[in-house]
Amino acid sequence: MAGAPTLAVDAMGGDHAPGAVVGGLEIAAERHPEMRFLLVGDTARLQPLLTRYRRAARSAVLRHAAEVIGDEMKPTAALRVRNASMRVAIDAVAAGDAAGVISAGNTGALLALSKIVIKTLPGIDRPAMAAVGPSERGDVIMLDLGANVTCDVRNLVEFAVMGDVFARTVLGLPAPTIGLLNVGSEEMKGGEQLRDAAEILKESALGPQFRGFVEGYDIAAGTTDVIVTDGFTGNVALKTGEGALKLVRGLLRQVFESSLSARLGYLLARPALDRLREWLDPRRYNGAVMLGLNGVVVKSHGGTDAEGFAHALDVAMDMVLHGFNDGMRAGLERMGRLDAPGGRKEAGGGQPLAPVL
Amino acid sequence: MAGAPTLAVDAMGGDHAPGAVVGGLEIAAERHPEMRFLLVGDTARLQPLLTRYRRAARSAVLRHAAEVIGDEMKPTAALRVRNASMRVAIDAVAAGDAAGVISAGNTGALLALSKIVIKTLPGIDRPAMAAVGPSERGDVIMLDLGANVTCDVRNLVEFAVMGDVFARTVLGLPAPTIGLLNVGSEEMKGGEQLRDAAEILKESALGPQFRGFVEGYDIAAGTTDVIVTDGFTGNVALKTGEGALKLVRGLLRQVFESSLSARLGYLLARPALDRLREWLDPRRYNGAVMLGLNGVVVKSHGGTDAEGFAHALDVAMDMVLHGFNDGMRAGLERMGRLDAPGGRKEAGGGQPLAPVL
Repeated sequence: MAGAPTLAVDAMGGDHAPGAVVGGLEIAAERHPEMRFLLVGDTARLQPLLTRYRRAARSAVLRHAAEVIGDEMKPTAALRVRNASMRVAIDAVAAGDAAGVISAGNTGALLALSKIVIKTLPGIDRPAMAAVGPSERGDVIMLDLGANVTCDVRNLVEFAVMGDVFARTVLGLPAPTIGLLNVGSEEMKGGEQLRDAAEILKESALGPQFRGFVEGYDIAAGTTDVIVTDGFTGNVALKTGEGALKLVRGLLRQVFESSLSARLGYLLARPALDRLREWLDPRRYNGAVMLGLNGVVVKSHGGTDAEGFAHALDVAMDMVLHGFNDGMRAGLERMGRLDAPGGRKEAGGGQPLAPVL
Repeated sequence: MAGAPTLAVDAMGGDHAPGAVVGGLEIAAERHPEMRFLLVGDTARLQPLLTRYRRAARSAVLRHAAEVIGDEMKPTAALRVRNASMRVAIDAVAAGDAAGVISAGNTGALLALSKIVIKTLPGIDRPAMAAVGPSERGDVIMLDLGANVTCDVRNLVEFAVMGDVFARTVLGLPAPTIGLLNVGSEEMKGGEQLRDAAEILKESALGPQFRGFVEGYDIAAGTTDVIVTDGFTGNVALKTGEGALKLVRGLLRQVFESSLSARLGYLLARPALDRLREWLDPRRYNGAVMLGLNGVVVKSHGGTDAEGFAHALDVAMDMVLHGFNDGMRAGLERMGRLDAPGGRKEAGGGQPLAPVL
């Protein structure tokens, strides 16, 4: 792909499309004026928006797509809608017109289409969904968040590689620590698969960064920078944590509305409370990334506003500008080949999955 | 078992034993003066405590046990320590001297010893660990929390029965709603096992209370009164939610210490903030219950204080006094027999697992 770094943007995905998408582009374009955007959707609706959003207009090129993939559409059905905005944006990545794609549309469709059209990186069995969240010690990246409901040992090891590369290239951590999510006491320790994955990681190039098993508490505690788990557990953990934070936000609102003196108290503590609110703002963590594909794929929350979409764009731009996929290739090489069936230690050609560094 | 309702108490389990245990007994004895306690442990250490805690002394009878099962001891090793306080307390339930047992000691050992010594209720394949937590709409009970890392369809259905009976007898809900924990979008929906369990529950006596699949968000939202999941997922979800709440508590402390006006704001909002803190206090939710056994088994958090231990005692006393296990037997009968292998719909004697009510 020649020319300026380009991101294909599904302009029609999400509850507030295309307004929130173009509004988000306006914000993101200011942060990264060197980025170019291929804005895909109904040009008749997008043109008027671009006259309002000048910076977005300067950074974006329009590409028409007549259809939209609805939130309720099953991935198998979505595959057949070839002129949908999401599909045309994904096709642009496969064709080399863009280094990545971002959409606030149907998650299942985005994942399925990306897998089929963009395809996985050589050496990666299955892509994973990852996201960054807040913790006591700074940002934590967790994966998989639902792309793979069941995972084998190999998948878990690959997730660790992807998480490591993401934390290095996007979060800028020189040697991110990695934990494998498990349950509490000795008696209850998770299955053979987790033990095997831990064993492989310990002996691998990631060994010095691997901190072994972590528990649910460790996600918000920030015990490790990267949390690796299967897609079912990760999806439940992510949403449980978000739900708990939402509960507290709602309760705090009630507290500060409960009496006149509580209202006054709120006003006095407001600067610090606002910083806390901003820090925990789900919009700041918007942008789940689909890792392991032949291009950058970012999913914005469907219900987000322009500010939130801009954050997801930031993640996508960082991945493109910091060469996430080059990092992935290097990371996989460092790990040695993982492509033996079932994640066994013997890799293709009889080579053991040995630490390379 | 004749006489007053009695609870066997492992006096030596937990980080602050026996002080926190006897202190908790003192509080709990005031709430339920009709309860009797069999206090098991090192009598040389317990006697002096009982001279300080008068109410506890009036409600409790001592039984000597020389040994203690350490937190790091594996369940297989714990099984061999026959004169450990936890073991002697569990033996008292099996012998009919007590209707239930409570311990703040080693979770894995408590579970393993209870299974072997007290045994499961007829018709129950595997016991489950459950706990109550806060939500937007009141208390929510979730199970399994780690007793069973892998579960089959039958186990999940049994967990729903246990959760229903617990919510009725301990939380006092006349028709608790039940949800089966799953992941988000269509594409990602959890495996066949969850679909089968949902199908069985829908057709069962619990059908009218069953709300189908719920997600991680729904735990703190309180979408259903009972959340059913496998022990791995439940353990991770519980600890993730607790971790998130702990994160916010820490951040709020920082907020209110960040400036003079924030301190003043805290003082003004204090009555409402204190109510919130109290409502979210982990001690208020202390006491994980092991359901499906031939007796009441409650695990207190090892690090809790007397106040927290008293809450766990409350749960145990409620289960004993409200006839939890009679409720379990009735609940299982209503459901029909579930004891066909692999949770298939055909039950013993060729009888289908049909709705009975």
